[in-house]
Amino acid sequence: MMRTLIYPRKESWTCLCRRPGTGGKSTGPAVKRILKDVRRSGDEALFKYTRMYDSVELKELKVPEKEIIESSSKIFPEMKNAIATAFGNIKRFHRSQLNEDEIVETMPGIKCRRKSVPIEKAGLYIPGGSAPLFSSVLMLGIPAKLAGCRQIIMCTPPDPQGNVNPLILYTAYITGITEIYKAGGAQAVAAMAYGTETVPQVYKIFGPGNRYVTMAKEMVQAEGVAIDMPAGPSEVLVIADEHADAEFVAADLLSQAEHGSDSQVVLLTESRKIISEVRSEIKQQITDMPRKDIAAKALAKSMMILLPSPEVCIDFSNEYAPEHLIINTENASELSANVINAGSVFVGKYSCESAGDYASGTNHTLPTNGYAKCYSGVSVDSFMKKITFQELTAEGIRNIGPVVALMAEAESLKGHKKAISVRLVK
Amino acid sequence: MMRTLIYPRKESWTCLCRRPGTGGKSTGPAVKRILKDVRRSGDEALFKYTRMYDSVELKELKVPEKEIIESSSKIFPEMKNAIATAFGNIKRFHRSQLNEDEIVETMPGIKCRRKSVPIEKAGLYIPGGSAPLFSSVLMLGIPAKLAGCRQIIMCTPPDPQGNVNPLILYTAYITGITEIYKAGGAQAVAAMAYGTETVPQVYKIFGPGNRYVTMAKEMVQAEGVAIDMPAGPSEVLVIADEHADAEFVAADLLSQAEHGSDSQVVLLTESRKIISEVRSEIKQQITDMPRKDIAAKALAKSMMILLPSPEVCIDFSNEYAPEHLIINTENASELSANVINAGSVFVGKYSCESAGDYASGTNHTLPTNGYAKCYSGVSVDSFMKKITFQELTAEGIRNIGPVVALMAEAESLKGHKKAISVRLVK
Repeated sequence: MMRTLIYPRKESWTCLCRRPGTGGKSTGPAVKRILKDVRRSGDEALFKYTRMYDSVELKELKVPEKEIIESSSKIFPEMKNAIATAFGNIKRFHRSQLNEDEIVETMPGIKCRRKSVPIEKAGLYIPGGSAPLFSSVLMLGIPAKLAGCRQIIMCTPPDPQGNVNPLILYTAYITGITEIYKAGGAQAVAAMAYGTETVPQVYKIFGPGNRYVTMAKEMVQAEGVAIDMPAGPSEVLVIADEHADAEFVAADLLSQAEHGSDSQVVLLTESRKIISEVRSEIKQQITDMPRKDIAAKALAKSMMILLPSPEVCIDFSNEYAPEHLIINTENASELSANVINAGSVFVGKYSCESAGDYASGTNHTLPTNGYAKCYSGVSVDSFMKKITFQELTAEGIRNIGPVVALMAEAESLKGHKKAISVRLVK
Repeated sequence: MMRTLIYPRKESWTCLCRRPGTGGKSTGPAVKRILKDVRRSGDEALFKYTRMYDSVELKELKVPEKEIIESSSKIFPEMKNAIATAFGNIKRFHRSQLNEDEIVETMPGIKCRRKSVPIEKAGLYIPGGSAPLFSSVLMLGIPAKLAGCRQIIMCTPPDPQGNVNPLILYTAYITGITEIYKAGGAQAVAAMAYGTETVPQVYKIFGPGNRYVTMAKEMVQAEGVAIDMPAGPSEVLVIADEHADAEFVAADLLSQAEHGSDSQVVLLTESRKIISEVRSEIKQQITDMPRKDIAAKALAKSMMILLPSPEVCIDFSNEYAPEHLIINTENASELSANVINAGSVFVGKYSCESAGDYASGTNHTLPTNGYAKCYSGVSVDSFMKKITFQELTAEGIRNIGPVVALMAEAESLKGHKKAISVRLVK
């Protein structure tokens, strides 16, 4: 069960905000070997590792387009409608992230402009395993498409029969992604980073994954391939006041705890009553959860903290920088204005994390492990880069020339000065 | 001198676009040792490494505020005016990068919002050495201030007398940065990443540096501290047509070549005449460059490439993804619309790189080494992260609840479904 802390001293916050850690043994050498192998042997290495880790002998790596299209027949209509609703909301929200060029004439004759340009080649990783994370296909595919990436490929591991779950294929299909490869783990990341005979090389790799995937992404990043963000176990922090419904709070904490035994959930409250109510709600609700063993392990690493006021709760939360922050208080809206560090914020009693995980419109690919202090979640921005342009006229060079010449000289860069002076002369 | 390639086959482009590399020996173990040492011994390690690498025994690490203010008296008025002009242009352009929240009601009762929030603590690294790169103080400090970072600190190595160049202090002062520490190299990066008794820990580290600094930034990034972007030697690619003034083109190539012996400069043109004219201009102009030895080494790694048309030049450039791209052709403006991969683009004959390096308004901290395929240059965005918010009403949860429940169930996450269903019931 979660441990309870009563008014911890501020000096202890940094320590309390440290994540429990995954505790796994080092994956470095194994991942390094896989990367090297895929770089050298390409498809052959992919077939080999799929045999080793996914227990299936594949005939081909690429999912035939026919199979993608046919997935539609395997999805029942109610689910199709649900996916369509999620798709619409996610698209509507992400569309608002597209922006126009900024154009500024900084001085007469000097026009500067910044333009967003899609990253040409994006690679999406979608984990397979027991649960098909088809929601991640929407969360990565929709912004990639809106950004206008020219080539969007997807890697996902096959099941023991060598198939990809139809829900994953179907969501990819309606998102417009048709280049799908059966590859999982570090080998999939390697394939997208280096390219193989079949899998094309991409410039940026996105998506969640286990510690092998995470380590592989970190390693290829050091080699110059961009990645969406560093990753850690999922987490939620709930701030609740005495008016909060303990049943909601408990359900929110448990919904995160079921993600994985390495998840952490945190409750901050000013109310002793809430702590005891939530505690007994959790005890009750957990009993009929299919993933109760996982949730129990996560709870054992988690905390309920009594703090003097909702404002202090926000201060603590800003220090913790949670991936998901649920503010379940009467004044949730005002409190949310003071959030500085968080991935995504759920404001008010009806705003549960599940809504954002699937269908409200916001992205669910978010910074964990305190990374929200310096990283943003995935958005259309993640699939674009910004290029600046400048155009100087003769007047512009006359206006700025002497300034540049003086500064360049002071930095001992005479060649820079010369590039100006040859122009000033003419 | 630069080698010349005539109509290279398209299959060779990838190879031609590969950068020559720094050729330095591995800095990994040395940097790892410094990081560990600073993490453990804090200030003591900083004093030690400053003694070792900057040959000075410091009494204190922090530059006294008095010294920062007094730097103003050491700068002559003409230089102050030049800096003020650059400051104004950079601020005007970067100010246009501030954006408003995006708010979308994705469905009735579901309001989603995205808000830009400054990264609280930013660390700027400014190299010292022979030339005081005070322009980088403007290029990093101005967007940091515009973003609204609460704490902006700066590290820069002292000279052998233990002082920081007054130009660096003065530009910091007018930018509003007053927390300046005398520390250089990997030890400065370590201090900002971990914090010491004197130097505060920051969440993101910015700025150029030698290969020790670059390696240190990469290593702390793997530990979760964000960095501006991966770095490599500086570079320029010039596209010139037969109408281009060879004197301008040669001066532009040389101004980049003088940056460092590991810089690469590339000329693309459809005109044999330009190649021969630029070649003789370079021979002539290089003779009276103070940094001609450096420039000559860079030229030896550089290329002039004859290609069939300006359009093909742009294609090659997009494959190369240059840090700086100068388009010196008659139809420069139209051509520039086809640029996909570049850090910053200089359009037309009067737009020399020097202008953007110092004072036109655009940022000079740009992706090198082909990273422009997936990274942007520094901007106000670099000093902010974006947080999403959502607020659901009872109507909102009724609209979206069944969708979320169905999708969560399909991903085998019953706890997620429960967080919805407890709310739907009430």
